[in-house]
Amino acid sequence: MYGISIREFGGPEVLEWTEQPDPEPGPGEVVLDVVAAGINRADVMQRQGNYPPPPGASELPGLECSGRVSAVGSGVSGWAVGDPACALLAGGGYAEKVAVPAAQLLPVPDGVSLTDAGGLPEVACTVWSNVVLLGGLRAGQTFLVHGGSGGIGTHAIQVGKALGATVLATAGHADRLQICRDLGADHALDYHDDLVDGVKTVTDGRGVDLILDNIGARTLGANLDALATGGRLAIIGLMGGAKGEVNLAKLLTKRLSMGATSLRARPVEGPDGKAGIVSAVRDDLWPLVEAGHVRPIVQERLPVQEAARAHELMDQGGVVGKLVLGVSG
Amino acid sequence: MYGISIREFGGPEVLEWTEQPDPEPGPGEVVLDVVAAGINRADVMQRQGNYPPPPGASELPGLECSGRVSAVGSGVSGWAVGDPACALLAGGGYAEKVAVPAAQLLPVPDGVSLTDAGGLPEVACTVWSNVVLLGGLRAGQTFLVHGGSGGIGTHAIQVGKALGATVLATAGHADRLQICRDLGADHALDYHDDLVDGVKTVTDGRGVDLILDNIGARTLGANLDALATGGRLAIIGLMGGAKGEVNLAKLLTKRLSMGATSLRARPVEGPDGKAGIVSAVRDDLWPLVEAGHVRPIVQERLPVQEAARAHELMDQGGVVGKLVLGVSG
Repeated sequence: MYGISIREFGGPEVLEWTEQPDPEPGPGEVVLDVVAAGINRADVMQRQGNYPPPPGASELPGLECSGRVSAVGSGVSGWAVGDPACALLAGGGYAEKVAVPAAQLLPVPDGVSLTDAGGLPEVACTVWSNVVLLGGLRAGQTFLVHGGSGGIGTHAIQVGKALGATVLATAGHADRLQICRDLGADHALDYHDDLVDGVKTVTDGRGVDLILDNIGARTLGANLDALATGGRLAIIGLMGGAKGEVNLAKLLTKRLSMGATSLRARPVEGPDGKAGIVSAVRDDLWPLVEAGHVRPIVQERLPVQEAARAHELMDQGGVVGKLVLGVSG
Repeated sequence: MYGISIREFGGPEVLEWTEQPDPEPGPGEVVLDVVAAGINRADVMQRQGNYPPPPGASELPGLECSGRVSAVGSGVSGWAVGDPACALLAGGGYAEKVAVPAAQLLPVPDGVSLTDAGGLPEVACTVWSNVVLLGGLRAGQTFLVHGGSGGIGTHAIQVGKALGATVLATAGHADRLQICRDLGADHALDYHDDLVDGVKTVTDGRGVDLILDNIGARTLGANLDALATGGRLAIIGLMGGAKGEVNLAKLLTKRLSMGATSLRARPVEGPDGKAGIVSAVRDDLWPLVEAGHVRPIVQERLPVQEAARAHELMDQGGVVGKLVLGVSG
């Protein structure tokens, strides 16, 4: 088969469409003939040399894909050759074939094309695990989404609204603020303005119950100030640095909690493994997708051979929703 | 009635046994004739002027007590004049009488004297809310208790063992390390030694799943390093300062979460209110107390008129378990 390999760490030009060994399904795994692969910020970090694949994972980039089952390993039930599916991957999605634990497969939701489904598992599992499984967002609560027009953000806004929350979203330009509103955000906040002032103004001084943050250190202090009593900060990215000061007295006074997670390094099984998240997404999020409450937002679909151009768009910033690489069909 | 008032902020000598207005039960409240009141670190901070009572609370110190119901307000069911009880208070425990929302009353567990029950509600609710309700400690997990020989620590060690966890406890002297072991701690760590080394040694390099910390900033970095993947840091005190640096990359890589809480400022009702915690303690912790798995540890019982001497002992440090003030009987 062919896949996109990383010739050396560097800019988008290091991505090359090269011949690779065909993957074989191990026990509990299936092989997918890939139809589409979603692009994530983590792929860019991997290309730059800042996010090595976990032990045992493919060296090829790509944390999610869609396709059709082409081989089924021992011990797998519920999936057969020819089934369409999408999958959360530990790597290897930018390729014609990929092997994946069956526990990380998801059906393609009704109403979503097989291509667009390739950009859905990573955002779906990231948002559901942080917003629902860890964050416990409920109807009537307030939820702040940073980067509301991005891949995670466009999904998180819709999930928050589908759960009955009041949703605040940040973005950096008027057109992207409007995209957040169009997706259902009750309040769109320009991130050039003071975050705490903005949040306090639209929440009558109360603050928000949950924040989904991909910035890290740069927004840490403001995020904690913007949380309501009992609030939670869920960090899923560190684009604004890793080391920040925390005033624990503020945490204690407001009974705040904060945590940071990533999906890729999780084990398949276990109490916080990928299988449990995928199962919850299938049971509780997919019905919201099939009902049309949460739609995949895809800015552009490109051929996989143009992965370098897709990464250039990621490097430039401002991608609305997801970029998806079409691999075949 | 008489109660201990704080003449001015300062040392133990500012505590005075003075005449006070009798409390009346408001709607949903009862009045207890106090038999005993527990002493907590927060009382010392209040005496020093560093922990003002929340709005509407008694100005008198005392966050927990035991006694007998002497008056029942409107809308209270399940409690009658003469019933023995212990209670979580927002203040006012160092007194002959105190008014308290009925939702903060607990029965006196079988096998616990009415006097020792006066020192139980605050530690019980603090430990259960942080270790079980927020921390989710389960059998087979590892649990690190800082200050294992103190009021919170002696209780937390026993709760951890009763839940089937492996318990690590820190203390500062050989005799207090032995007390931790006698209470069931699997490993007692001298806090003068390197915490991370000690934890890694006794957990085969894995780290612990949950830490209950009353130090704050001074132990923050070591605590995060001592946590296992998926671990949680629960901060309940800031004796070692409030401002600390956090490396969010460590949180993200290990999927850690951290939070800080206090009991006193919580509302009675609501999703993280006192009533819910008290109810969980009554349903799930009291049976462990009645079975003898969790015993109140009381170093000394003193007459309430000697509150100043009790505070001197608190100021000196090294109190094992709780100090309890006897108010009558």
